Amino acid sequence: MKWCRFQAGSKVSYGVVEGGRVAEVDGSPFEAHKKTGKSHALDSVKLLIPCFSPTVYAGGAPNYVKHLEWANSYFGASFKHPKEAHTGYRASNAFIAHNENIVIPRGAKEVHYEGELVAVIGKKAKRVTPEQALDYVLGYTIGNDVSERTWQFADPTWWRAKNSDTFKPIGPWIETDVDVDNAMTIVRLNGKVVSEFRTGDFIFGVAEYISAISQYITLVPGDTLWMGTDLATLPAIKPGDKVDIDITGIGTLSNPVIADK
Amino acid sequence: MKWCRFQAGSKVSYGVVEGGRVAEVDGSPFEAHKKTGKSHALDSVKLLIPCFSPTVYAGGAPNYVKHLEWANSYFGASFKHPKEAHTGYRASNAFIAHNENIVIPRGAKEVHYEGELVAVIGKKAKRVTPEQALDYVLGYTIGNDVSERTWQFADPTWWRAKNSDTFKPIGPWIETDVDVDNAMTIVRLNGKVVSEFRTGDFIFGVAEYISAISQYITLVPGDTLWMGTDLATLPAIKPGDKVDIDITGIGTLSNPVIADK
Repeated sequence: MKWCRFQAGSKVSYGVVEGGRVAEVDGSPFEAHKKTGKSHALDSVKLLIPCFSPTVYAGGAPNYVKHLEWANSYFGASFKHPKEAHTGYRASNAFIAHNENIVIPRGAKEVHYEGELVAVIGKKAKRVTPEQALDYVLGYTIGNDVSERTWQFADPTWWRAKNSDTFKPIGPWIETDVDVDNAMTIVRLNGKVVSEFRTGDFIFGVAEYISAISQYITLVPGDTLWMGTDLATLPAIKPGDKVDIDITGIGTLSNPVIADK
Repeated sequence: MKWCRFQAGSKVSYGVVEGGRVAEVDGSPFEAHKKTGKSHALDSVKLLIPCFSPTVYAGGAPNYVKHLEWANSYFGASFKHPKEAHTGYRASNAFIAHNENIVIPRGAKEVHYEGELVAVIGKKAKRVTPEQALDYVLGYTIGNDVSERTWQFADPTWWRAKNSDTFKPIGPWIETDVDVDNAMTIVRLNGKVVSEFRTGDFIFGVAEYISAISQYITLVPGDTLWMGTDLATLPAIKPGDKVDIDITGIGTLSNPVIADK
């Protein structure tokens, strides 16, 4: 089942994507809801970010072995193979929806895409086991953890490197039924495949992160957990580019890249 | 003017604290609002966290010279005098209100208070100068940046060290008129003064942080900027303690400390 948030005319609603149409819903997937009986052609509505994230958690840093090895080699960095499922943060100010523009900020030198699986929390979770953890996931969407690499090595907690406005494309919707272990993440830059990896090749999986975080922190509906990317994230993106990220079983998140005005 | 959020019976409202009473308001300080004409005795209502923070920014780390020097000496840390107003993050899951309990989590070894000034953003701010920045501040409140020190040196981005549930007391209200330069921050543990410093002795001030962040990131109403603490943060807090933080011109944030159940 695909949950989207969308705007039709001036009205914003949640909806369920079925074939080429969106069935409008009163309420949201995080609370009581029912279909209104209205539906819209999918290509006639504007898709919005699929949820508001009170807190935006990010696995890693790096949460895939080949990305870690590539980053250490390419940047001369010293990321270590993580021994525990420690989390970082991203900031929801940077969220943009499917088809919205990634804006390269003034002063940016090297901006990279990062195609990622994003788990969306559906229910309050505190002190859950890895075995219970997936019961608290509403579903999965796609994220692009856009990163300015020179700032990444200058900024504590990567605030500007990873959270400049528009740096967190997320969408197009939340798919509740995903076979993460057998999914593939495929990044296309201007239509050409630049990265392709098994989505489930994480160092720590979704259940391990949720369980680890929830030992200390109450996860709440809408919180997102960004699962990291694999491999290299080259070439750098620039104004005029278009980035598409497919995760099989979910869909495609597409975002054009433009210069700051 | 003191803006509070409060609950009276089952109703949650914003209000304005005037003397010993709270004048109830329809709306909020971040949007259209007007007094309803009702008021309540301040000691008859439950004060709530004064705002929801879409993103929680934290200055530093360390943003006061003597705290930096103490931390390097006490922990054998190697914090450097910051050259730029870089920001970190805290997470709103950890917010609790005035008089709510700080819960020492399981496994915690050394939990410290940190008495801080917190600036509350009132209007969208993007690319503002330091001279303009304070126009975007609604007012100031008090924060306790509770920190588990052994986790602080083990966790990337201090997720559990600083954001375990209940680790971010904030309140009691937002004061719109504060003379930050002449304010004092005073921390009392079980009634005894354990820390006392000039609030305005920051390395970087509120205007510098807001301007720096806003070059890349749109600050939005309700965002909070935690300004760091000065001096040592000893002794460690333990169940049965009570922490009071005064900032002159704002008020007192009080929180009992209890053990996890």
